[in-house]
Amino acid sequence: MKTVLEQAALCKAAAPALAALSTAEKNTALAALAAALETSAQEILAANAQDLEAGRAAGLRPALLDRLALTEDRVRAMAEGIRAVAALPDPVGQTVRGSVLENGLEVSQIRVPLGVVGIIYEARPNVTADAAALCLKSGNAALLRGGKEARNSNLCLGRIMGEALTARGLPAGALQVVEDPDRSSATAMMELTEHLDVLIPRGGAGLIRSVSANSRVPVIRTGEGVCHIYVDAAADPVMAADILYNAKCSRPSVCNAAECVLVHQDVAERFWAAALPRLAEKNVELRADAATLARLPGAQPAAEEDWDREYGDYILACREVAGLDEALAFIAAHGTGHSEAIVTQDYAAAQRFLNEVDAAAVYVNASTRFTDGGCFGLGCEIGISTQKLHARGPMGLEALTSTKFLVRGSGQVRV
Amino acid sequence: MKTVLEQAALCKAAAPALAALSTAEKNTALAALAAALETSAQEILAANAQDLEAGRAAGLRPALLDRLALTEDRVRAMAEGIRAVAALPDPVGQTVRGSVLENGLEVSQIRVPLGVVGIIYEARPNVTADAAALCLKSGNAALLRGGKEARNSNLCLGRIMGEALTARGLPAGALQVVEDPDRSSATAMMELTEHLDVLIPRGGAGLIRSVSANSRVPVIRTGEGVCHIYVDAAADPVMAADILYNAKCSRPSVCNAAECVLVHQDVAERFWAAALPRLAEKNVELRADAATLARLPGAQPAAEEDWDREYGDYILACREVAGLDEALAFIAAHGTGHSEAIVTQDYAAAQRFLNEVDAAAVYVNASTRFTDGGCFGLGCEIGISTQKLHARGPMGLEALTSTKFLVRGSGQVRV
Repeated sequence: MKTVLEQAALCKAAAPALAALSTAEKNTALAALAAALETSAQEILAANAQDLEAGRAAGLRPALLDRLALTEDRVRAMAEGIRAVAALPDPVGQTVRGSVLENGLEVSQIRVPLGVVGIIYEARPNVTADAAALCLKSGNAALLRGGKEARNSNLCLGRIMGEALTARGLPAGALQVVEDPDRSSATAMMELTEHLDVLIPRGGAGLIRSVSANSRVPVIRTGEGVCHIYVDAAADPVMAADILYNAKCSRPSVCNAAECVLVHQDVAERFWAAALPRLAEKNVELRADAATLARLPGAQPAAEEDWDREYGDYILACREVAGLDEALAFIAAHGTGHSEAIVTQDYAAAQRFLNEVDAAAVYVNASTRFTDGGCFGLGCEIGISTQKLHARGPMGLEALTSTKFLVRGSGQVRV
Repeated sequence: MKTVLEQAALCKAAAPALAALSTAEKNTALAALAAALETSAQEILAANAQDLEAGRAAGLRPALLDRLALTEDRVRAMAEGIRAVAALPDPVGQTVRGSVLENGLEVSQIRVPLGVVGIIYEARPNVTADAAALCLKSGNAALLRGGKEARNSNLCLGRIMGEALTARGLPAGALQVVEDPDRSSATAMMELTEHLDVLIPRGGAGLIRSVSANSRVPVIRTGEGVCHIYVDAAADPVMAADILYNAKCSRPSVCNAAECVLVHQDVAERFWAAALPRLAEKNVELRADAATLARLPGAQPAAEEDWDREYGDYILACREVAGLDEALAFIAAHGTGHSEAIVTQDYAAAQRFLNEVDAAAVYVNASTRFTDGGCFGLGCEIGISTQKLHARGPMGLEALTSTKFLVRGSGQVRV
């Protein structure tokens, strides 16, 4: 069994060759990856069955087992996802800016791969295929460390995809799935400053905070989403109820789902009349402040920690506010900088909300669920950054690149 | 005396107001900063005289005393530098991309300030004025921690500039010069993950490495430059000698100066015939490998560590290579990813060098000394990034910004 350090060294050694691949070579390799997954579907499902059996024996929650489980359809979807990445424009080599200086020097800034991308994620085998495809398309070597509950599935996927790549002449370091996915391997990755150019943690808030706090490798924080819907005094109550229902209930487990609604006191009665029946469709549990409790006898009283919870479930924190100022201050104090929305017909309120909320995505009259690389036209995403450096919001292929300046001269020296 | 934490809290509290300033308001404030420095020049020089006296008593090297010293001309130059920043385009609010999605959602990605920028730098008071201006223009609060040898100068500059800002109604946290610039204040800044959005170390390699290794706040590494000039077999020897002379001798103390020349064996005799007299003008000390020593009896033998040294002085490491492959491998092993140059008339060699060297700036037939925000048309720079995340190469105002997505809808929900 190779150590994380040995695998990272393979990645680093492979990076220059990957950076030099043409778009056509990368797309052909991606097609080979997709075909290999489909051809080896039974083998993948057998490996996954081992993980599922161990997971059931260990008492994993049904939601986790569902994320872990592969089916023929899901394997096909992974292959299709890889083909979709192949169809995206190649960011490498794009000119970001360029000009000829007064002295005749031709300066251009072009996109280049980051080099080696490390990703730490949960027990979701589909991420292994997604991440491999996105890293390859952007010319990066990938060191992937999935959750240990998916170890057999991930190693199987890594071997099949790795063989498809080496059969096409690509180096083994193009894709390395960490062979020993215990906790110490994640810790080891955080120390590999000589090997990794970036480390991206994907998954629960605990993992992300721990990696951000402890990694010596530069980190991109992703995905913690305590998102708010603010229903302004000038909101259309029915539109607000629709948006809240969608933001809370269309997929409660994801990071762009709403966790808290802030309701202006002047619209609260009309809003709740529209929203309660919608939320009742999914039996959403409401945890409310005193003012809201007075209107909604069926709600539970919210505890202080409810204002900072990412439930990932059919639970909603509810709070009444006296105005936009209070809503903005509350979001500044309790938001995670992911996605925030106002529902209003008041132009000035909309403008203030857009300008003053400090988050990756700020919405007027739309559901926070649109914060997604696919929805925003980036084609795909490696995660949603909630930090401000390098990338913020959905990260597509560009977020996996850096730049370099090329300077072509004819003997110029600086005076 | 306020603690670093108290000062950082002032900065964080000030950030929203700074982000909301219009370009006109920022430019007026910058003009006030420049005027205040000129009006208070005698006061600044008196504070600087205290630092110089203490520095002489402590036996500071002449080069350090020169960086520390202010004169009326240098104060005027600081003021002019601030006015030059005011004249630059404001990056905040620029639209990076924008489109209308199929469902009618209007999505735009705009530039916003990072928030609070921390900078740790050496005993160079002019950096205090530069950094204050760049942070203000980009809408960021600044927490500046200069070298302790410049403490009186920096506190005086901070007080004068701070008063000019508060007199215009800006919050005190817009600019905070760390009051207690001992080592523990730098360590404290590295832990302020709740207050600082980025930490930029400027100065010696030791400082930069220590901050990169230990900071929990995201860091942008700047300025370590072990830059090479590779003189290819197909180089014009006179052009190569001119470029090397400029890269080594025009300002040896800066990070874009060359530290090492790699000479193809087929051109070595003609190259050195042209280069030796030029380097002799400045009594450049040559530290050479065996092959070069055989040609240059006046050179010193290089030790192994000479291949990784940033001399910052009239010293040059010299090495003969058998070809481009050897030069590329040597640069990959010993370069710091700053600036690298090839001198050649061979098109294929130039293209390979541009494509394969992994550095912030890669040159053909020009001096590495051009790696500079002013030279590259960015107007100014806060430093030269040698990392790949967020910014690489000279960092202008854009490098002090993040982005956010604004999404304007009319009730859209995700299906």
